[in-house]
Amino acid sequence: MCDKTSVEQLLEIYGQKHLTAFWDQITEEQRKLLLNDLNSIKFDKVCRAFKETEETDKDGQNKSIDDLLEPLSSQVHQSITRSSKETLNAFRETGLREISEGRVAALLLAGGQGTRLGVNYPKGMYDVGLPSHKTLYQLQGERILRLERLAYDLTGKKASIPWYIMTSEATKEPTIEFFEKHDYFGLPADNVVVFEQSTFPCFQFDGKIILETPYKVARAPDGNGGLYNALKEKGILDDMKRRGIQHIQVYCVDNILVKVADPTFIGYCISKGAEAAAKVVQKAFPTEAVGIICKVQGKYKVVEYSEVSAQTAQKRSADGRLTFDAGNICNHYFTLNFLNNICGKDLIHHIAKKKIPYVNSNGQLVKPDKVNGIKLEKFVFDVFGFTDKFVVWEVLREDEFSPLKNGDGSDKDNPTTARLSIYNLHQRFVLNSGGKFVDENGKTVPLIASPVKVDLNGNTDLDINDKINNNHNESQVICEISPLVSYDGEGLEEYVSGKRLQTPFILSGDCVSEGHPLKTAKLTTNLINGTNRAATLINGHH
Amino acid sequence: MCDKTSVEQLLEIYGQKHLTAFWDQITEEQRKLLLNDLNSIKFDKVCRAFKETEETDKDGQNKSIDDLLEPLSSQVHQSITRSSKETLNAFRETGLREISEGRVAALLLAGGQGTRLGVNYPKGMYDVGLPSHKTLYQLQGERILRLERLAYDLTGKKASIPWYIMTSEATKEPTIEFFEKHDYFGLPADNVVVFEQSTFPCFQFDGKIILETPYKVARAPDGNGGLYNALKEKGILDDMKRRGIQHIQVYCVDNILVKVADPTFIGYCISKGAEAAAKVVQKAFPTEAVGIICKVQGKYKVVEYSEVSAQTAQKRSADGRLTFDAGNICNHYFTLNFLNNICGKDLIHHIAKKKIPYVNSNGQLVKPDKVNGIKLEKFVFDVFGFTDKFVVWEVLREDEFSPLKNGDGSDKDNPTTARLSIYNLHQRFVLNSGGKFVDENGKTVPLIASPVKVDLNGNTDLDINDKINNNHNESQVICEISPLVSYDGEGLEEYVSGKRLQTPFILSGDCVSEGHPLKTAKLTTNLINGTNRAATLINGHH
Repeated sequence: MCDKTSVEQLLEIYGQKHLTAFWDQITEEQRKLLLNDLNSIKFDKVCRAFKETEETDKDGQNKSIDDLLEPLSSQVHQSITRSSKETLNAFRETGLREISEGRVAALLLAGGQGTRLGVNYPKGMYDVGLPSHKTLYQLQGERILRLERLAYDLTGKKASIPWYIMTSEATKEPTIEFFEKHDYFGLPADNVVVFEQSTFPCFQFDGKIILETPYKVARAPDGNGGLYNALKEKGILDDMKRRGIQHIQVYCVDNILVKVADPTFIGYCISKGAEAAAKVVQKAFPTEAVGIICKVQGKYKVVEYSEVSAQTAQKRSADGRLTFDAGNICNHYFTLNFLNNICGKDLIHHIAKKKIPYVNSNGQLVKPDKVNGIKLEKFVFDVFGFTDKFVVWEVLREDEFSPLKNGDGSDKDNPTTARLSIYNLHQRFVLNSGGKFVDENGKTVPLIASPVKVDLNGNTDLDINDKINNNHNESQVICEISPLVSYDGEGLEEYVSGKRLQTPFILSGDCVSEGHPLKTAKLTTNLINGTNRAATLINGHH
Repeated sequence: MCDKTSVEQLLEIYGQKHLTAFWDQITEEQRKLLLNDLNSIKFDKVCRAFKETEETDKDGQNKSIDDLLEPLSSQVHQSITRSSKETLNAFRETGLREISEGRVAALLLAGGQGTRLGVNYPKGMYDVGLPSHKTLYQLQGERILRLERLAYDLTGKKASIPWYIMTSEATKEPTIEFFEKHDYFGLPADNVVVFEQSTFPCFQFDGKIILETPYKVARAPDGNGGLYNALKEKGILDDMKRRGIQHIQVYCVDNILVKVADPTFIGYCISKGAEAAAKVVQKAFPTEAVGIICKVQGKYKVVEYSEVSAQTAQKRSADGRLTFDAGNICNHYFTLNFLNNICGKDLIHHIAKKKIPYVNSNGQLVKPDKVNGIKLEKFVFDVFGFTDKFVVWEVLREDEFSPLKNGDGSDKDNPTTARLSIYNLHQRFVLNSGGKFVDENGKTVPLIASPVKVDLNGNTDLDINDKINNNHNESQVICEISPLVSYDGEGLEEYVSGKRLQTPFILSGDCVSEGHPLKTAKLTTNLINGTNRAATLINGHH
């Protein structure tokens, strides 16, 4: 370990001498902490990153990349809506076979806290208020369990899907505790691998690293693109290799509809020989705030919506679709080979201007009320440019994408929209499997129910209207199907076909716990209905 | 006029004897009123309508028309997004030439009150809070003025677009007063023709007509399909004939983006030799609550969303689009010939169950708190089945459809979404014409601006976040261009091209009042800026 003198020489070289400004005022113990902290920083790398990022950022403000955007070719941009059922089934089967060979892993990006949701715990622990009160983590874990079952049913081979969860300093401990407390939602504990992303020092605008205390540097997580460093440094790549993983699906925690380890997506990627891929949803209208995937100077890239001009955003192809319509939803596929290749590479950083607490010249902590510094972040999608074997898979927003970002005061992407997305999808699962919903008078509830009868002059009865305004058009049909029963709508005929069902309709996991070949004590843990009765339909009223 | 005896015989025949139940208790004057009222009712027609509608309604509950739905052929279902610029320009020019020949009329359905908006005046009088504070009526009126100017510029021929406004009992007087007070927004008064739709008696569930007072029958407007009766009975067809009208665009009052008398739409319809047509927007997802236009047993029809099964709603064509995606937005085209042919025909009625105030056996008015009766309504689109020469024109939702239905407490179709739709469209007008928006530091504001910088872990600075939640993601760019300056984005280069503009950016109507060949005192009435300076840009700050 370097002593103070050599550290100070280093600081001098990189213009960071202020980091030892409190040396004379701190204790021997604190000095040790500070030295340790400083020794852990690769100043050449860190300071070069700041300088380069700042220059790129300034350049970016002057020149537009808009002219350089090329659309994706249709060969690499297929869609669930433009594929035949046979093709989709073939993709799915390929994916399931890979799962039963133990070659598929799920990788969850869960570094974010629920700040905008108004909670101070990891987002994955959030309960959007489904009848089951399952959290995002539980929904995802149960989808993995179901997939393992489907792969077994197809091939007769048992295998598991390891679940890697990248957390941040803030989310790691609560996440681990939560999984322990809930017995890993039925998954074997050693298949849930929680690791932590790295941090990066915070800077003042002039490039000076910020001190958070007299003996501690201010740091922040290095963005979801910090994944690649962490995969290498935390031994995850090795763990994947050891387990024989070949395909990894990476996704963000906040999408309540996420198809974890989606076999169809994986099968598509395999069919294309892709090293890397992105699931996308069709951008709905020119000014929708979504990053789009395209080519820039021959390289695949996610272009942020703020970088796109009106002309480009409104451009349409002959078939009427937006020319740049591949909306990024942070749901990616990588081969382990690809990750091994790129995890050593330097990714560009992006600047996030933030309010960063700092220590003032008197040694006191200041929480600024204005943006005062810069965090450098890497983006998970910035590795797309490293390969030509890249494809995009367009899925349906209503089936697969409903992010939880805001609290219920907000007008979108909130707990209510998340909950309604589930009800809507699961209602269609039931209808597509031959079930019917009926109201308390036995009348069929239509798929698209009007919560209020409005005549064509816009008139309505006021009391019903009040109801709408209060409940945000809450669906008439409350329908929740446990992921333990169905991953994406399959296997429901035996429970619903030809049945007249009342809302709320809840199909809980215990209906698969009887006689299940994979049945373990864990499988029935955390089900809504603790009872062991063979009841397949739990169809109660509030 | 029939006397009481013959009326009572009639009532006896139709089972409506209760309508004279208060005869002995009412005054001579009231008896006259009642007799007049009863004499105005064609009992055979009215009671048959009730019976038939009730039977159809019951039948409808038992059998589904879902199997009978046929999609539209691409020949009759063209789209703005799948047409070339040249084609669109040709349509537009055709439409403008028809306008300058005086053959085009606009027909506004304005029977609705602003009940759901929380106001007790006609919806057209609503101000959504644009910088100009223009009402829906004013925006529409000014679009008509601009179109007349565009047609004149193209052909050198002056002509006007008569504006027919169908009101109801509740909206007629306030609408007329409002137009008078505002000097018809610059339109010649005799080009604004306000007329009233008919009413229809209200029924109990058992088919008895409801009395509102001891000497007055309860009535309600007969739905927007009451248009066709009213056109005939109120002499509107004759008025159209007298003026030489051949093409009529019919639309609802609540769409703030409505392109009144849209020349492109009219040109398209003419190119197809259509007698009737509907503008549609693409249905965005299977469970969107929008009626769709299709064929049923060979006839064109609007099928309400509640009539469609999950299978049908989710069905897609090979190109990925929903098979039934022609979303009806109550914006139609008819030739006068067609209207002349169908205005005598009987349309089917639809049942709307309502809370209908009634007089009880003691002669007291009761306002029920539960649904107690039936209003019979006709729908404007129920005439589509009368012609084979029917086409559909798909337009872009973000350009042409943003209905104002609810108050701001609601999550959609409210004054805020209406206002933002205008800002968004007008911002694109400016950008497409070579203008740029800059912020207070001179930095370019992107088309799609993020109101808050959120990092990829979903973290954000809380105070900015609070701001979002409070202001419903209000656009960063406030941009309002008077319809007097531009109908749909044309003619803005001279004002904005190459300019760096600050928000709020307001381009008001007085910039066209100088040297305008159509200039009249009326044209400059009701502009935002009363000043007569030649200033073309009114570009202030809040």
